[in-house]
Amino acid sequence: MQSAMSTAVEAEFTVETQRISFASLALDCGVTLRQVEVAYETYGTLNHARDNAILVLHAFSGDAHAAGLSKETGQPGWWAPMIGPGLAFDTNRYFILCANVLGGCKGSTGPASLNPATGQPYAATFPLLTLHDIARSQHHLLRHLGIEKLHAIVGASMGGMIALAFAQLYPEMAERAIVMAAAHTNHAQAIAWNEIGRRAIMHDPHWLEGNYYDSPHGPPKNGLALARMIGHVTYISEGAMDRKFGRKLQAGDKESYTFGIDYAVESYLAYQGSIFHQRFDANSYLYLTRALDYFDFAAPHHGDLTAAFAPTRARYLFLSYDADWLYSPERLDTLLHAARAAGRTAHHHIIPAPLGHDAFLVLKEPQTQLISQFLIE
Amino acid sequence: MQSAMSTAVEAEFTVETQRISFASLALDCGVTLRQVEVAYETYGTLNHARDNAILVLHAFSGDAHAAGLSKETGQPGWWAPMIGPGLAFDTNRYFILCANVLGGCKGSTGPASLNPATGQPYAATFPLLTLHDIARSQHHLLRHLGIEKLHAIVGASMGGMIALAFAQLYPEMAERAIVMAAAHTNHAQAIAWNEIGRRAIMHDPHWLEGNYYDSPHGPPKNGLALARMIGHVTYISEGAMDRKFGRKLQAGDKESYTFGIDYAVESYLAYQGSIFHQRFDANSYLYLTRALDYFDFAAPHHGDLTAAFAPTRARYLFLSYDADWLYSPERLDTLLHAARAAGRTAHHHIIPAPLGHDAFLVLKEPQTQLISQFLIE
Repeated sequence: MQSAMSTAVEAEFTVETQRISFASLALDCGVTLRQVEVAYETYGTLNHARDNAILVLHAFSGDAHAAGLSKETGQPGWWAPMIGPGLAFDTNRYFILCANVLGGCKGSTGPASLNPATGQPYAATFPLLTLHDIARSQHHLLRHLGIEKLHAIVGASMGGMIALAFAQLYPEMAERAIVMAAAHTNHAQAIAWNEIGRRAIMHDPHWLEGNYYDSPHGPPKNGLALARMIGHVTYISEGAMDRKFGRKLQAGDKESYTFGIDYAVESYLAYQGSIFHQRFDANSYLYLTRALDYFDFAAPHHGDLTAAFAPTRARYLFLSYDADWLYSPERLDTLLHAARAAGRTAHHHIIPAPLGHDAFLVLKEPQTQLISQFLIE
Repeated sequence: MQSAMSTAVEAEFTVETQRISFASLALDCGVTLRQVEVAYETYGTLNHARDNAILVLHAFSGDAHAAGLSKETGQPGWWAPMIGPGLAFDTNRYFILCANVLGGCKGSTGPASLNPATGQPYAATFPLLTLHDIARSQHHLLRHLGIEKLHAIVGASMGGMIALAFAQLYPEMAERAIVMAAAHTNHAQAIAWNEIGRRAIMHDPHWLEGNYYDSPHGPPKNGLALARMIGHVTYISEGAMDRKFGRKLQAGDKESYTFGIDYAVESYLAYQGSIFHQRFDANSYLYLTRALDYFDFAAPHHGDLTAAFAPTRARYLFLSYDADWLYSPERLDTLLHAARAAGRTAHHHIIPAPLGHDAFLVLKEPQTQLISQFLIE
C-alpha cells in the first residue's frame, strides 16, 4: 500500500480509487459476509508515527472519491473545497482516507456485488446492515493500512452517524470526531421519508423483488427517481428552494395546463431523479436507508445518550446548519449536551447556511476555520 | 331548496348531502364543462334578509360533509368542533354551506364523473381546473339558493386559497374572509411535494393514463398511497411526529431486520396511504394538486399582491399555526401586510399548535373565540 500513502499532493492532484478485500466480516444481524471489498482513496502521506490519519465518512449517496481529480473520470471529489493542500483537511499535514460504505454501490461490497457462494448478485439476499457494520468494514481498512490511531474521524449526514458508530466501537482509536448535520438517531419524520422512498422503489414493477440486475427493463428507475426527489427536497431548505426556483416556469414553456413539467422546480427534481439510477443502485437505497433508520447511538445504553458518550474517548466538534430541517441544530445540541454531561470535550457551532442540509458539501467558510482549529486543539 | 334551508338544528343533528346540477360552467382553460353537479350540505337556517350565509371551503381531501351526523353513514362532519349550535360557526345564527369541490370525488363533478358527451368517465380528459373555477362552481350554488351576499367565506389549506379566489372573483359578495393555514400561492417546496405525489400516481402501472375505472386491477392504489403518505408528513410537524411515534416499534414486533414495517410511524403512514383509495380518486389527486400549484392570487396583477387585495372588499382574518411547516405563519403574514397595504381591514393570529398544519381540523380554542369575534365585528 506504500504507493497509496505517498500520493503526490499538488494544487490539482489526481487520485485513483483503490480496493482491499478481506475474507469475512461478522455483521450485527448474525450473518458473516464473505470476500468483502472496500473501495477507498487516500490523500496526503501517512507519517512515520502513523498518527496523522483522518477518516472521512461520506454521506448517503457519496463515494470514496472525496478529493482530487479522478484519474478515471477527471471529476473532482465530492468534498473538493475541504480536502487538499492548505485546505481544512490539509493534505500537507494529514493523511486523509475515504472509503465507500459497505452496502453501497461505488466499489465496496453491496447488494449489486456477486455473492461468492452463488456467483449471482446478492440483490435482496444481501444481509441487512447497520451503520456499525459499515464502521467495522472501515476499521478493517485501517488495520490493513497499519493505522491504529486516527487523528480524527469526520462525517456529515449519514457519515456523521457512522462517525458516531465508529467512536462507539473503537473508542481508543478516534482522538477527535467531527459530526456534521447528523443526529444520534433518526427522528420519526426522517424515518417516514425513508420509508416512502423504499416503498416507491419496491412498488416499481421493475424492482422484481430486487432481482433487476439482468432484467431487460433495467433497474426500477421510476421508483428510485421518486425516492431521490423526496431526498432532494429534504436536503435543501424551503427558503433556498423558493429563492432558486420560486414559481418560475420552465424556460421556453408557457403555462400549459398539463400534467407534464411546468415549473422549474419540477424540472430540476425530475432531472435529478431520472439520472440517479446511473450512479446509484436501488437495492443500496433500501439497505442504506434501513441502516440509517435502525441507527441509535444510545441503544446499547438503553436510550441513555449520556451513558452512550461516556465510554467514548474522542473530543467532539458538532456542526449544524441553521436552515437544515432534516437534521436541525437542535439535534446537534442534544449531542453536545449529552457529550458534555458524559465528561467529553465538545463544541457545537451553528453555521448560518440558508441552503440547508446540503450546505456541508459546498461551504468553505466557516467550516475551514472551525475544523482547522479543532484539528490542532 | 326550502327543506335544505330549514335543516333542524340539534345538539347532534343529522344532515344529508344534497346536489344541484347546472347546464354549463366556462373554465379558465377555455373549455366549457357541461351538466355540472355540485354536492353540498347546509346547517342552520337562511334568514329572511338572506344575509346570514357562510360558505365553508374544504381542504384537499375534504368533502361537503362538514358538520352534523351524516344520515347515510352516521359519521360526524370533518369540522364538527367548529360548526353547530353555539359553536364558532353558530347554526343558531348563521346558515352554513359546504360544497364538495369541482374536480373532486365526493359528489361534485370530477374526473370520475361520466362525461355526458361520451357516457364514459372523463378520466384524464377532464379539463384542467383552477381554484378560481372551483370558486365559480360554488357561486353557482349560491345563486341557486338565492344568496347574493355572504356574511363570510372561510377555508383552511386549499380551502383558504379557494376563499381568496372567491374574494377576488366576487368582491361584492364576501363581507368577511377567514383564511387559515394557506398562502397566496404555492411555494417551490409545496409544488415539489405535489409533483412527487403526481409522479407516484402516474408511474403506478395501474394508472393506465387515468383509465382505471373499469380496470380489473382497480385504481392505482400504490401510487395514491405514496402520494398520501407524503401529504400526511407535511400535514403534521416534525415535533408532533416525534411525540406521537418517536422510534416506537410496531406493537408485537421486534426489531426484525426486514424491509417490512418496523416502526409505528411507518405503520401509521402505510395504513393512511392504503385506505386512501377508498375515499379519494387518484385522478382527482392529479387535478386538484395541479390547481393548487397553478393558483396565484397575485397573478392577475402581475405578481403585485397588494394590488391583488385592492379590488377585494372583504375584511380578512388570517389564522396560522406556529408549527405548520407547509403554510407557515410567515406566509400568512405576507397576506396580512399586503391586505393592509391595500387598505383592507385585516388581522393575523398565530395560534400555538404543536400538531402543525392539521391543527385547524381539531382545535376548538382559540379558533372558536377568534372566529366568533370576527364574525360579529
